[in-house]
Amino acid sequence: MMKLTISAVTGRARLGVISSLGQSGEKTLEVPGCLLYTRTASPPHLTHDTLQSIAGVPPVTHVTLSTLAEHQEVLEEYKEGIGQFAGLSDTLLYCSVNDPVAPTAPGYNTNKTVSVWGSGGRLELTPQKFVSLQRALRVDWIQCLSDGEVMADGCSRKRARKSVDRSLAFLDECLQLMSESEALKQKVVIGAIEGGDLQEERLRSARETAKRPVSGFLLDGFQGRSGSHEAKMDLISAVTAELPEDKPRIIHGLGRPDQVLDCIERGVDLFDSSFPYEVTERGCALCFTHQYQPDPETAGDPQPPVLDEEELRNGEKNEEKSEDPETERRDVTAYEICLKERRFREDFRPLQDGCTCYCCRHHSRAYVHHLLTAKELLAGILLMMHNFQRYFSFFRCVRQAMSDGRFIHLKKEIQRQSA
Amino acid sequence: MMKLTISAVTGRARLGVISSLGQSGEKTLEVPGCLLYTRTASPPHLTHDTLQSIAGVPPVTHVTLSTLAEHQEVLEEYKEGIGQFAGLSDTLLYCSVNDPVAPTAPGYNTNKTVSVWGSGGRLELTPQKFVSLQRALRVDWIQCLSDGEVMADGCSRKRARKSVDRSLAFLDECLQLMSESEALKQKVVIGAIEGGDLQEERLRSARETAKRPVSGFLLDGFQGRSGSHEAKMDLISAVTAELPEDKPRIIHGLGRPDQVLDCIERGVDLFDSSFPYEVTERGCALCFTHQYQPDPETAGDPQPPVLDEEELRNGEKNEEKSEDPETERRDVTAYEICLKERRFREDFRPLQDGCTCYCCRHHSRAYVHHLLTAKELLAGILLMMHNFQRYFSFFRCVRQAMSDGRFIHLKKEIQRQSA
Repeated sequence: MMKLTISAVTGRARLGVISSLGQSGEKTLEVPGCLLYTRTASPPHLTHDTLQSIAGVPPVTHVTLSTLAEHQEVLEEYKEGIGQFAGLSDTLLYCSVNDPVAPTAPGYNTNKTVSVWGSGGRLELTPQKFVSLQRALRVDWIQCLSDGEVMADGCSRKRARKSVDRSLAFLDECLQLMSESEALKQKVVIGAIEGGDLQEERLRSARETAKRPVSGFLLDGFQGRSGSHEAKMDLISAVTAELPEDKPRIIHGLGRPDQVLDCIERGVDLFDSSFPYEVTERGCALCFTHQYQPDPETAGDPQPPVLDEEELRNGEKNEEKSEDPETERRDVTAYEICLKERRFREDFRPLQDGCTCYCCRHHSRAYVHHLLTAKELLAGILLMMHNFQRYFSFFRCVRQAMSDGRFIHLKKEIQRQSA
Repeated sequence: MMKLTISAVTGRARLGVISSLGQSGEKTLEVPGCLLYTRTASPPHLTHDTLQSIAGVPPVTHVTLSTLAEHQEVLEEYKEGIGQFAGLSDTLLYCSVNDPVAPTAPGYNTNKTVSVWGSGGRLELTPQKFVSLQRALRVDWIQCLSDGEVMADGCSRKRARKSVDRSLAFLDECLQLMSESEALKQKVVIGAIEGGDLQEERLRSARETAKRPVSGFLLDGFQGRSGSHEAKMDLISAVTAELPEDKPRIIHGLGRPDQVLDCIERGVDLFDSSFPYEVTERGCALCFTHQYQPDPETAGDPQPPVLDEEELRNGEKNEEKSEDPETERRDVTAYEICLKERRFREDFRPLQDGCTCYCCRHHSRAYVHHLLTAKELLAGILLMMHNFQRYFSFFRCVRQAMSDGRFIHLKKEIQRQSA
């Protein structure tokens, strides 16, 4: 049904297009790319009208089972599915088991059930319950139930093996149940690769999952800040080498621009867009350049074209000056500016020079600073519009760079700004 | 400069239009009417694009000095005024001293200063400081500084007299200072009528304020829930009888539909729109009919056309079922439904049948309930869009009823629903 066509390969990075999507098969999704992140099936802070004023919104919307499971009864009564219920018409829907941003507690999964956390607390999902939920949700891509509580940052060999065994058993049972359902038998199933940080278990998970009739793969358990980045990257390289070339690979929670490029280099195709949401929630605006073509005019100039060195220095100097002590500086990445900081009080420039988003066209950093200081919710709306548009444009730029044979230039430019 | 033309009078209710507004004098504002409520100069939860999708937005936007005073330095540096800073282009601006929703603490005003509370705490305003602030804000209508901490629900005779004396002294000093400023001498000044609940002081305040070169009047101190409604109405009647007919009268904080009609009947022309904001903040949707023309087809039918009796009965039966115990039922008026209540879980109707707002066109009560339950901020956006549109349409309907000679029919319809 779903078809991945690869048009160019740079090392192991794949440029391509997923086609034959949706009911009538007319939609396409370019890779490398990202999905539209939502919270309980709505793009954070945004009405659908507002969403339409953001450039480059991905054609696939990402909803999470954990936040929707407790609404099963309502959705069964409603009958039209979560897309219609949430007013998400004219988009494809991908449903992951967990929200990449919400933490989950380990220790609850069993051989028969997987636990998810909604606003009402913990809910145990059996394969039967999972499949009946999917019948009510009516999404297009389904991440299969899996024992995903083992992270890529360390666990025992025994627990890693168990996560793979259980996930394969869940996959087989769900596939069987779905094949018996008229409504579900044509759905795209994404198999989850588990196995914690044990390479041999990860490889077994990849090989065995690839033998099943799945349309794509989720490299699960890479969310979270802990663990070594290098070890995670090695694991990803090993796993993708084991997977068939003609099916897309998804990853959650590795969304920082430099992480995204590292993953793409290792054969990952799709990302969620929870990163710009997290940036928004801490009162920050993405402010980085992804201009990868050295302009002959400025090639000798060490100053990047958009975020200037002075700005970076100011950021360092003002490290202690955030007006809201709750903002933890360690979360703020090098790709963003924290608008709660006092230095933006009289900064009447747009969030990022040259940005064409709604916020940058209409408002200044000083105004957003003022909204944040006054705890006005409009700050979240404006930042979300900017951060989504910047993030989607970053992915467009990644594809352009690959198509121009300049992926490595882009990577250098992104790495330079992380320093 | 500003001109009120009255086209029809029903009892003491005035139908008319305020003209010659704005720099080029081309704007008009119909009365009875309301102003667009904002928080720190932004319409709550709404970008200006989103605001434009709301029908009937008033041409005058209401900002409050208390939330802006601490930004004086930034605005002086910015130079273009608060309208430009907050992206509120193409609207007239009215600046009141306090926010009708925010509580103020009494006991701080002196003969020389008035205290206001911003997000950074208390700020003392002298007439000099007030006028220099107004120079930075650059609004069109200025409510003059006044000793407004004495409410219409009771105070000593001495305190009431002092509030009038001080307010007249502040008015004279501000008018003098403004007349010396090139930027401010042409501004519309709204004089505040003070005097607590003492009719003789209120009348003195009205008479003396009317002798000054002000363009309109604010009946101050009627905010808040305490005190007898009848006593307040008697006071309002007495005050408006004392005021010249050719200048508009504004009131803050009496925004419930039945209160609005009571005030209009006593000669009040303009209201703020903090009421729909408060309705939104408690997770509620305005759901009342202002269809005042008895349709011959249904004239014998006791059921109102929009909110049905079954709904009202359900509301009563479900009184205890709000899923959020924080919502205080006593705040929910008869003109709204509380969407946090469990009974809306599977209610797939729009917020109000027949409503053409963005939310009602795209979403159901069940979806808004679900957003509220998940604490998604989109709930506030959707409710604000609906509640603003319903509220603005209510005022349009009031004017239509007056023009049709059917004000009394509308009043009966509104009163019937308050029972």
